[in-house]
Amino acid sequence: MWTYDAFPRAAVKAAHGFEPSQEWLDSLRLSSVRLAGGCSASFVSPDGLVMTNHHCIRSCVQDLSSPQRDYLATGFFAKELKDELRCPKVEANQLEKMTDVTARLQGATKGLSGAAYNTALKAEMSTIESECATGPEVRCDVVTLFNGGKYHLYQYRRFQDVRLAFAPEFSMAAFGGDADNFHFPRYGFDAAFLRVWDANGQPLKTKHFLSWAKEGTKEGDLVFVSGHPGATQRQLTVAELEFQRDVALPFQLLYLAERRGMLREYASTTPERFRTTRAKLRSVENALKALRGRHQALAEPSLLADKRKAEADLRAKVGADPKLAATTAGSWDAIARALEAYRPLLAEYRLKESGYGFSSELFDIAQQLVRAADERPKPNPERLREYTEGQLPALRQGLLREAPIPAELEVLSLTFGFNKLRETLGADEPFVQLVLGRESPEGLARALVKGTKLFDVKERQRLFDGGKAAVEASKDPMIVLARRVDAQAREVRKRYEDTVESVLKKNGELLAQARLAAYGTTGYPDATFTLRLNYGTVKGWEEGGKKVPPMTTFAGAYERHTGKEPFRLPDSWMKARGKVPGETPFDVATTNDIIGGNSGSPLVDREGRVVGLIFDGNLHSLGGEYAYVPETNRAVAVHGEGLLQALEHIYGAGRLVKELRANQR
Amino acid sequence: MWTYDAFPRAAVKAAHGFEPSQEWLDSLRLSSVRLAGGCSASFVSPDGLVMTNHHCIRSCVQDLSSPQRDYLATGFFAKELKDELRCPKVEANQLEKMTDVTARLQGATKGLSGAAYNTALKAEMSTIESECATGPEVRCDVVTLFNGGKYHLYQYRRFQDVRLAFAPEFSMAAFGGDADNFHFPRYGFDAAFLRVWDANGQPLKTKHFLSWAKEGTKEGDLVFVSGHPGATQRQLTVAELEFQRDVALPFQLLYLAERRGMLREYASTTPERFRTTRAKLRSVENALKALRGRHQALAEPSLLADKRKAEADLRAKVGADPKLAATTAGSWDAIARALEAYRPLLAEYRLKESGYGFSSELFDIAQQLVRAADERPKPNPERLREYTEGQLPALRQGLLREAPIPAELEVLSLTFGFNKLRETLGADEPFVQLVLGRESPEGLARALVKGTKLFDVKERQRLFDGGKAAVEASKDPMIVLARRVDAQAREVRKRYEDTVESVLKKNGELLAQARLAAYGTTGYPDATFTLRLNYGTVKGWEEGGKKVPPMTTFAGAYERHTGKEPFRLPDSWMKARGKVPGETPFDVATTNDIIGGNSGSPLVDREGRVVGLIFDGNLHSLGGEYAYVPETNRAVAVHGEGLLQALEHIYGAGRLVKELRANQR
Repeated sequence: MWTYDAFPRAAVKAAHGFEPSQEWLDSLRLSSVRLAGGCSASFVSPDGLVMTNHHCIRSCVQDLSSPQRDYLATGFFAKELKDELRCPKVEANQLEKMTDVTARLQGATKGLSGAAYNTALKAEMSTIESECATGPEVRCDVVTLFNGGKYHLYQYRRFQDVRLAFAPEFSMAAFGGDADNFHFPRYGFDAAFLRVWDANGQPLKTKHFLSWAKEGTKEGDLVFVSGHPGATQRQLTVAELEFQRDVALPFQLLYLAERRGMLREYASTTPERFRTTRAKLRSVENALKALRGRHQALAEPSLLADKRKAEADLRAKVGADPKLAATTAGSWDAIARALEAYRPLLAEYRLKESGYGFSSELFDIAQQLVRAADERPKPNPERLREYTEGQLPALRQGLLREAPIPAELEVLSLTFGFNKLRETLGADEPFVQLVLGRESPEGLARALVKGTKLFDVKERQRLFDGGKAAVEASKDPMIVLARRVDAQAREVRKRYEDTVESVLKKNGELLAQARLAAYGTTGYPDATFTLRLNYGTVKGWEEGGKKVPPMTTFAGAYERHTGKEPFRLPDSWMKARGKVPGETPFDVATTNDIIGGNSGSPLVDREGRVVGLIFDGNLHSLGGEYAYVPETNRAVAVHGEGLLQALEHIYGAGRLVKELRANQR
Repeated sequence: MWTYDAFPRAAVKAAHGFEPSQEWLDSLRLSSVRLAGGCSASFVSPDGLVMTNHHCIRSCVQDLSSPQRDYLATGFFAKELKDELRCPKVEANQLEKMTDVTARLQGATKGLSGAAYNTALKAEMSTIESECATGPEVRCDVVTLFNGGKYHLYQYRRFQDVRLAFAPEFSMAAFGGDADNFHFPRYGFDAAFLRVWDANGQPLKTKHFLSWAKEGTKEGDLVFVSGHPGATQRQLTVAELEFQRDVALPFQLLYLAERRGMLREYASTTPERFRTTRAKLRSVENALKALRGRHQALAEPSLLADKRKAEADLRAKVGADPKLAATTAGSWDAIARALEAYRPLLAEYRLKESGYGFSSELFDIAQQLVRAADERPKPNPERLREYTEGQLPALRQGLLREAPIPAELEVLSLTFGFNKLRETLGADEPFVQLVLGRESPEGLARALVKGTKLFDVKERQRLFDGGKAAVEASKDPMIVLARRVDAQAREVRKRYEDTVESVLKKNGELLAQARLAAYGTTGYPDATFTLRLNYGTVKGWEEGGKKVPPMTTFAGAYERHTGKEPFRLPDSWMKARGKVPGETPFDVATTNDIIGGNSGSPLVDREGRVVGLIFDGNLHSLGGEYAYVPETNRAVAVHGEGLLQALEHIYGAGRLVKELRANQR
């Protein structure tokens, strides 16, 4: 997960006899696309065509669907350019510039700790970002690298007119369902194509895009992944890892597991419930499985033993250097103490402020309107980070999205959240009383959803534009609830930020600087949803003494078809059986070090050509959150050859195939 | 949790100025009743009246209900003796005799280890039990004390004609629902009355029963609990505790959480689904919360720090004694290695053999029929433990119970289990293939439930009586499935028993003996669902700096009533409002050290009179699995005075009140 400015070209040459040129790197970087919702993508034509995963735009497909036209079920293909449908809430970013701003941030926080450190750090970030963002088409993010050892300013070009060109059936994108998720051999056709349109309502002309490879990649090939790994936590202290294992992950896992049970059962009752729920259900299932894998990695004694060794080594190095010792020797204990403070606070913080107690699109909208009204009049550096000027375009896009909100599912989710609030904090807790009073969770949820007008985009617009006066005058029950809980929710957030987050961040930064002083930048920084490039090879692994080959084929997909979900190939595939030769590669495993957020990344060969589309990892890759284990950690991609063949012969997506083949080399 | 033969009378006298006489102890012991399903109870009249918790006989109430007469909803009161209804599956036991058989078992396993140790131990247990059990009315169990430091033979009188006399509404027994479960202040009226009937169809005449106290107990009073704590694990090694925290508990918790989400949603859709599901749902919720409390206790660093200290102390003592060192110094490592073997095996074992993959009443019946046919022809000591002669009466009672099995809920549960099998072990795993083939989990579950005849008690009787020939000839799809998976299920069980269980047991026994040698029997043995007596006082505790008083009142219950489930008092209580004075005590907290299995235990005063009915503990009591913390661990009981008042003035249960008052003193 190398940053582009520190890619180890020499090491690649030494290992593989190929040294990427600066031009090669620049071209790949500018062809890479970030989907701001949390995915990766790439330009694959000069006319703004973008390749990503189906699961990255699943909520767009859901938003564009209705009971009459269910694109998640049937798939979607825009026969002509004009048929492409705008996604209500997709923002694409293209990284144009990176600037080191470490000195400026370190200057702003010099000598500070605790809440003061945190406030100063965030304020300076907001200031730098607003200086950089000269218009809504420019997105500027101060990003943290090496856990605060370095800070960079990333400047992106922002695109909000992103349209859906092609999506396969959900059941084909996620063939094998939750049972096969994070498994390999795999037969997921998790691909989709979008197109970026410019301000004039024309397809974006782009110089930078990736060509499709004429020959498919094969076992042993050198391959690169350019994308945006979301977050790794490989520099956590042992105390932080133990906290994850014992406290944070169990809390999240139990929440997700129960939610999954509820959603599955709910979705099973009527076709309409199934239609409105399946995308959310899949997200919950994916998160549950991913976090479970992380928990299992931490529960393996070997991982923590390695971490203890590394920590002891760094402690010795810090202790041996008087200057480092003075600043940093106390950091491990400071972190451990902050975690002890976090332990009794975690559930409260998660439930009251970070979404677990109010799991609802409508409540999110209400809260954003209430907070935007409070925050926007403040000077930019003093605002909550998600309401700074740089964040407003995304906030506005989300608030004003024209996408259906299924009312019944809202009731279900709110009921679930309110129940969790009451069960976890106790029926007598003041915040719980403030929310529920003498009402039942379900009764309150029903009344809120029935009474709110926030389904209506115009009403949201009115409240957003009307600011504090409009929001305070509103009698909308969801707005009233968001107003009522806001002071207490902000209070717990402040308590968390002042006593936990700031200490972990400040001391994490000190440890990161110590690590840089002791070892230099020999490795790459933890993933922070910033653009990274890495290299690996097409390769299987050994599982329980058996070899797992790195490729699957179309024939294998047809063999796995049982006719029963989730192992049912859709009609398009059954009708086209035989049109793609059985030996054509389907999915492929590689040694690239990826993590969630890399989804949708192009897999490219040494010519910089597309040879695949990353969409998943194997089960062993889940521990990659904490450590990369080369023997077993594998990325999983749709094979480029299979992808193009299926587009052409199964989906008859002639227009797109032509566009892709035009630049094939 | 003292055994009756080692109750520390002198210590009680020193602390409280009261020394129970042997007669006092014998009378309390013989008045104590064990409900073989996993609860405690007591005789409270000379005519076989038995007091226990509603939640202990919830499944009986469910079994006796139908869509037309829903006793869980309405409660049940037999106006006359003849109206008492027999519970299809309740067995009551009265402890008559305890014999030390340690020498015999140690002789049988001398010099053995691994599978040989395990086989010899179980065979000798079965032999001892069958020698003791002279008829179906005698139940004999070899019980383990001090983790195998001692073995006793417990001889019980067995009663299988147990009838329901009184049960309140489920919503009153569990007032506050899952939100208030394990919380205090509490207003649960978790009481029920059964009656044991003798072989002649008459109420059992018993010399031994408890009188009701004339005055209610109050803060500071010395109180005793006589009952059957299910299991504590206070002697586990640090490696075993870490394994629970990191592997075993997370696996169980996630299973239960997802099941809870599913069942709640399922139960919410129709009244009939609610009726058939709520008892099961409550059990799942209770287990989930209890295990979560255990996990949280283990995740507290202080608990494991204490355990590490205790372990280091014992290790030092073992190391200092050459004889002990020779037998036992390697035990900690042996246990740790067995756990490493268990780690990759746990999910497989739980799913294939211990119920997680086949969570279904009908499958359990099928498996019992298949296995009984295989096991019963074998000599007693060679059988699986649950099919030995001593177990047959309970097995037969369960198999032949006349209780409805809700078909739709069976489909739901089976589907859930099959999904878990496939998700956890992988779609390609041979056992998964053996179960599912090309069928979907739901499709298979539906076909099994639709095709089976095991709903019919006569068919079960036919197959049980017909033995191997009948079972092998059966084409019942549930029987066919149970037959098909049996070899592989037995194989994983054998692997677990030979490589894990036997090592943990053998070395646990060695450590227990070392502990006895080093410290003597200063404490009481871990709970093993054997009769225990303990003492404590009526006392509140401090929570987050605030005092929690030890008593609640009737007035408090009415204040807590919101009119919405689970805080809705039933009509009986609303109609009788004011009939019981508001200051009458409702629930009460005490310092007694109890654990699951103690539910239904009588709380008695120094006169041996009933002053309450144990039904729960506070949240802190959940860590009692691993350690008793006197500052915060509290048992929770229905107060005896409130219980009697409610029976009389709210439920008008005049006949029972008269029976109880007849011996009040």
